[in-house]
Amino acid sequence: MNGLVVLKIGGSIITDKSSSTPKSLADAIERIAQEIAGVSGSLILVHGAGSFGHPLARQFKLTEQFDVQGIIETHRSVKSLNTMVVDALTLSGVPAVPVHPLSCALLEQGRIRDMQMAPLREMVQRGLVPVLHGDVVMDSARGAAILSGDQLVPYIAQKMGAERIGIGSNIDGVLDNQSKTIPDITPSTVDRLRVYISGSSHTDVTGGMLGKVQELVELADKFGISSRIFNASTPGNITRFLKGETMGTRIQKDK
Amino acid sequence: MNGLVVLKIGGSIITDKSSSTPKSLADAIERIAQEIAGVSGSLILVHGAGSFGHPLARQFKLTEQFDVQGIIETHRSVKSLNTMVVDALTLSGVPAVPVHPLSCALLEQGRIRDMQMAPLREMVQRGLVPVLHGDVVMDSARGAAILSGDQLVPYIAQKMGAERIGIGSNIDGVLDNQSKTIPDITPSTVDRLRVYISGSSHTDVTGGMLGKVQELVELADKFGISSRIFNASTPGNITRFLKGETMGTRIQKDK
Repeated sequence: MNGLVVLKIGGSIITDKSSSTPKSLADAIERIAQEIAGVSGSLILVHGAGSFGHPLARQFKLTEQFDVQGIIETHRSVKSLNTMVVDALTLSGVPAVPVHPLSCALLEQGRIRDMQMAPLREMVQRGLVPVLHGDVVMDSARGAAILSGDQLVPYIAQKMGAERIGIGSNIDGVLDNQSKTIPDITPSTVDRLRVYISGSSHTDVTGGMLGKVQELVELADKFGISSRIFNASTPGNITRFLKGETMGTRIQKDK
Repeated sequence: MNGLVVLKIGGSIITDKSSSTPKSLADAIERIAQEIAGVSGSLILVHGAGSFGHPLARQFKLTEQFDVQGIIETHRSVKSLNTMVVDALTLSGVPAVPVHPLSCALLEQGRIRDMQMAPLREMVQRGLVPVLHGDVVMDSARGAAILSGDQLVPYIAQKMGAERIGIGSNIDGVLDNQSKTIPDITPSTVDRLRVYISGSSHTDVTGGMLGKVQELVELADKFGISSRIFNASTPGNITRFLKGETMGTRIQKDK
C-alpha cells in the first residue's frame, strides 16, 4: 500500500520494563497518542509487551514449555496494555482498532508461518489504524511461543507492501562501540557494523537490537522497505519520524 | 477433525437480552462452564453477544453505516463478555483461550469471505478450547458489519471438519405452530416445515431461528455435519448434548 507506515513502539517506552509486575507509563502512552494524532497518513501500530508480557512469559517459561495458564494470563495481560494504547489513541482522535495476534497468527518454531492480513488491509483502506502487540501465539512445533513486535513489524510491512517502518526504541538509534548513533546501515555495511551492535539493556525473551537490525536489513534488501530506528522516549521524535525527518539510524537498500 | 464438536451458546443464555445495557448472567455462565468441564472431548465454543452487542450495534447503526466509535465500543463490550466466559471456563478447569473475530475474519456483504483457521486448528490439536463470540468485523463491501455466532458456527464446523454442532438457545428446539419441538429436520423436510418456524422472540440484528435452521440444513446437506438445537438454559442440557443424548431438534442429512 502506497505510503503505508508501520510503526513499532517498544515495550520499554510505554511500560516500566524493569518492573517484575505490569506497570504502564500513562504519560508516555498519552504523549505518543497525541503525536500520532498530529500527523495524517496510513498507519499500522505495533507495540511491545514490556512488563505486561516478558515477566509472565518468563514466569511460565513460555519459551520452553506449553502452559495453558501461562498462555491465558500472558495474553490477558498484553491485551490490557493494548486496551490502554487504543484508549489513548481514541481519546486523541485516532481511529484505532485492536488486533490480537493470538487470534490471527500461527508460528512454527517461533517464526510466523501464517497470519491473517485481510482484516488489516480492510482497516487501513477504511482509514483505521490497527493496533497490534507482542503476544503469546500458537506454534505448530512448540504449542505456543512469543511473537514479538519486532517480528510482527517486518512481516506486516512486507505483506502489506508498506513504504517504511519506524522502530521507536528507548535509545537514539543503533549505537556503535562509542555509544554514538550509526546514521545509516545497508546490506553491504551491516556485517562490518555487527560487532558494535549490542543487545537490549534488559533481559528480553525476544532478542535485542541485533535481532531488530538483522530483520530490517533483510527487509530493505529483499523488498526495498526502509526503516528508521529512533528514540521514541524523546518527545517529538514520533512526530518527526511520521513526517519523514532525518533522525536515529536509517536502514535501507544499497544504492 | 474427528469427533470435534462446535457448540454455540446463545447470547440469550449468558446475558439478559432484554436489557438495553450490557448485563451478564453470572450464574448461567458458571453453570455452563461446569457442564462443559464435566465432559471431555475436542470442543470449540462460540457465544452470542446478547446485551453486550446488539444494543450497541443498533445504537451505532452498525448494519447501516460505518462508525469507528461504534466498532471500537461494540468490540470492547463483546470482548468483556468473552472474558467472563473464558474466566468461568478456566476456573472450572477447561483450557479455554479467547479468539476474537475482528482480528481474524473479513466479511463481504455480511458473509464470511475469509477467516484464519490455522490458530484454531493448533489450539484444538493441543487440547485447548477456543472461545469465539459474535463480533463487529470488517466487511469489504460495507466497511464493518456484525458477524453473528450463528454464522460463525457452521463456517467453523465446515472448515474444521467437525463431527457435530450444538446450538444452545433459550427454547426447547425448533418449535412448530403449536409450540411443540420438531424432533428432526432434514433437507427434504425443511421446506414443508418452514412456515412453522418463527423468528427470535427479541429483535435481533442477526436474524432469528429460521436463519439458524437454514444454515444448518445446508451444512448437513453439503458436508454431512449434524446439528442439534436445544434449550441451553435448562441445567444439564449442555452435558446431555456433549454426551450425544437425544434432545431438542436434530438437523441431519437425508438417509
